[in-house]
Amino acid sequence: MATLIISNQRTEEMVGDLDSLTPEYRRYVGNQAQRMAWCLGEGDVLVLPTAPDEEFLRHVTGQLGIDRDAVRVLVPPPGRYGEGVLSRDRLCGEAFVGELREAVAAHGVDRVLPFHFDSSVAVLVRALGLDGVTAGFGFLDQSGGRLLNSKATFRAIAGGVGAPVPEGGVFTDQEDAARFLWERFLSRGLPAILKQDFHVAGFGNEIVSPVAGVDPLGAQRTVVAADREELEKYLTDRWPWLTDGGRGSVVIEHYVPESVPVYAELRVEEHGVEFTGHGEMRMKPVLNGLIVPAPSASADSVDFTGFLEAAARMCEPLHAMGYRGIVSVDAIVTPDRDILVNEFNCRTGGSTHIHRIGERVVGGDYFTDRVLVELRRCTFPPFAQTVRSLEEAGLGYDPATRTGVLITVDDDSPSGGFGEYCVVGETLAHAEELEERVARLFAGPGAEG
Amino acid sequence: MATLIISNQRTEEMVGDLDSLTPEYRRYVGNQAQRMAWCLGEGDVLVLPTAPDEEFLRHVTGQLGIDRDAVRVLVPPPGRYGEGVLSRDRLCGEAFVGELREAVAAHGVDRVLPFHFDSSVAVLVRALGLDGVTAGFGFLDQSGGRLLNSKATFRAIAGGVGAPVPEGGVFTDQEDAARFLWERFLSRGLPAILKQDFHVAGFGNEIVSPVAGVDPLGAQRTVVAADREELEKYLTDRWPWLTDGGRGSVVIEHYVPESVPVYAELRVEEHGVEFTGHGEMRMKPVLNGLIVPAPSASADSVDFTGFLEAAARMCEPLHAMGYRGIVSVDAIVTPDRDILVNEFNCRTGGSTHIHRIGERVVGGDYFTDRVLVELRRCTFPPFAQTVRSLEEAGLGYDPATRTGVLITVDDDSPSGGFGEYCVVGETLAHAEELEERVARLFAGPGAEG
Repeated sequence: MATLIISNQRTEEMVGDLDSLTPEYRRYVGNQAQRMAWCLGEGDVLVLPTAPDEEFLRHVTGQLGIDRDAVRVLVPPPGRYGEGVLSRDRLCGEAFVGELREAVAAHGVDRVLPFHFDSSVAVLVRALGLDGVTAGFGFLDQSGGRLLNSKATFRAIAGGVGAPVPEGGVFTDQEDAARFLWERFLSRGLPAILKQDFHVAGFGNEIVSPVAGVDPLGAQRTVVAADREELEKYLTDRWPWLTDGGRGSVVIEHYVPESVPVYAELRVEEHGVEFTGHGEMRMKPVLNGLIVPAPSASADSVDFTGFLEAAARMCEPLHAMGYRGIVSVDAIVTPDRDILVNEFNCRTGGSTHIHRIGERVVGGDYFTDRVLVELRRCTFPPFAQTVRSLEEAGLGYDPATRTGVLITVDDDSPSGGFGEYCVVGETLAHAEELEERVARLFAGPGAEG
Repeated sequence: MATLIISNQRTEEMVGDLDSLTPEYRRYVGNQAQRMAWCLGEGDVLVLPTAPDEEFLRHVTGQLGIDRDAVRVLVPPPGRYGEGVLSRDRLCGEAFVGELREAVAAHGVDRVLPFHFDSSVAVLVRALGLDGVTAGFGFLDQSGGRLLNSKATFRAIAGGVGAPVPEGGVFTDQEDAARFLWERFLSRGLPAILKQDFHVAGFGNEIVSPVAGVDPLGAQRTVVAADREELEKYLTDRWPWLTDGGRGSVVIEHYVPESVPVYAELRVEEHGVEFTGHGEMRMKPVLNGLIVPAPSASADSVDFTGFLEAAARMCEPLHAMGYRGIVSVDAIVTPDRDILVNEFNCRTGGSTHIHRIGERVVGGDYFTDRVLVELRRCTFPPFAQTVRSLEEAGLGYDPATRTGVLITVDDDSPSGGFGEYCVVGETLAHAEELEERVARLFAGPGAEG
């Protein structure tokens, strides 16, 4: 009874071409991979793209109450995309598979938890002889992960189960797309977001707006197209990029500025769908981490129960198809107090480790009696020193009060800004107060979004 | 209570580019569109790509026991791909939509039955104000039809529900595909079929075999690749074609020569999945039509019940996703007496009108006490003369005996070969006897496969 955890935060199938990510960003997501250390259980095997600080591992396992020495952490040699990503050549390299095979046998691994169950993981699972025990393998082995990674698949399923989504559609024809964009949005003064079918974290998204000044949240940029002619020009220019050379599809949706992003995390298990939790992406002063649970300021002002029901409803077809694993359903709370679902991700989420910390470290009714605020892109002193400073300032996480600060991701960047922490407070105000004290302690962690 | 039937036998979404179909083939499928006349009910509206012979319409409505004059048949002006296909420009042309709108109102249309519910039909349904009453519209409007038309989607769902499929996988990487093809198939002396993700009727399929002499049934051709080098050469040459310019996926499966194709037709309805029937594609002397039900020679020799159960199981995720409509599940009976599912089609099937004839014309327990043999690519004299000749020879369909011959599709080709008929016998032997008599009567209908 042990789990093989593979922290492949970005894969070929998630982003299309890993080369399109800058080396800096690849190092950043490679560092971020430490998040999955919080998913460790006694005796598990963890695969990371870069070796973590041993002190960090002892800190995590200590907080989780498991034996560091019973846990194995493996890092394959750098691959064709460097160190930050667990590309296929790294995961499926012969020597590394041999090493993993030995670890799987020694630890009695009978479960696999990747960040993203893509075809490389499927190949690896088969090579390790774990295909028979892996829930959902039949689906994932036949490119089910890629299918669910498609934004067009999301739109079809959301439409099918009647989930509230932004007005929009899926297009393969430029002329249809132009007509739709113009008639439904631009001619009415509304901006729209255009999403490549396969991409992640806004890298394949652009906003088209009839007016300037629309902040491209969740997209690479905003393009202004004030009339039909400018729209045609823009589309002709970008259609090949939007549609992978003219053959794929593009999702076009109403873009609602000043919306607050929220999410619900669920698990599709053999027996059915289970709810993990929900939260909000903090937008102000900058986009920087999560608040768990979603604060009442947004959740109480909309039909949040309806959103959670829709999220669960969207998981039913995923269950029927044979998917097993985590589902993160993203939505926006609009200034008009609508809540609209705009994406799902069938993989480990950016929130998964925060909920694990809630369940395994904070415990109790963490989801109702505590607030967890996660901060990203922070700059720390070296790990041991950071922990010591927090403790000396009385800010370290304290199991007795079930409050305080946990370093969730160590900052291994020489230039800083790769670190993450999680503040546990009794209320949002309490968490924010602790957060400010941490900020003062480290003379202001960078918050670059 | 009337249905708008749209016989769009080939669509942009089914074949990618309608221009890739020859004009001759487009005329052929345009003629074949008459099949859906057998789906007519009292007061329905039927859209066809070409105008049918009025005598044919009277024959069909007469056999169905409905009033010809209460039924409206509409044909939009020819479009950019000519007359044979109901391309988007024809279906969604402003004048034609106006005409349809009037017909929809006059006939009290509250249901839509296209051959293929693609995005053009979705646009049309919305323009006609029928989106609110159309089951499954939410899913189909958001490109659900395209999603289910993907062969990769089929493989994922089949894998997810554990349906028996030919060994295979879905590939986006040429190197992975080459390794898989070589290791699993070619190096073991086995041929494989490569399928473009989006195509229909074998147009996007090729077979690769280590030896010559493999008949490319359901594919365009067989390519011989006797060693790894020839395989690499073939793949490098064809990868852009197979993957839509390198960005799509290709399905690779074991190809089992000398297999017999069978199908099961089901309906995904609001309340659940219903079974329509099953049949076999007749292979000898040439591929030419259907036998309904699948004869015991194939059905009794394999786990046919297991196949039907798997077919129903595959419909569960389609139901959960929100698809509503017909599903045709295709399988092969191999020489080793395996039965393997190799495709589903979420649209009206080539078998749908035969089952309608069974239900509406033959009636009773047609599926157990009669055998229906459909023949395609037949050459007839002009329609009225053909019907007269059949009647004079005592071969016309007789409601009293529930046997005889129905002209299911009139042959409007000047060169012949576009006609189809359905022979109803008490047994397969009886149907074959009637078929021979028809063949002698018309001095041998062409059977070009």
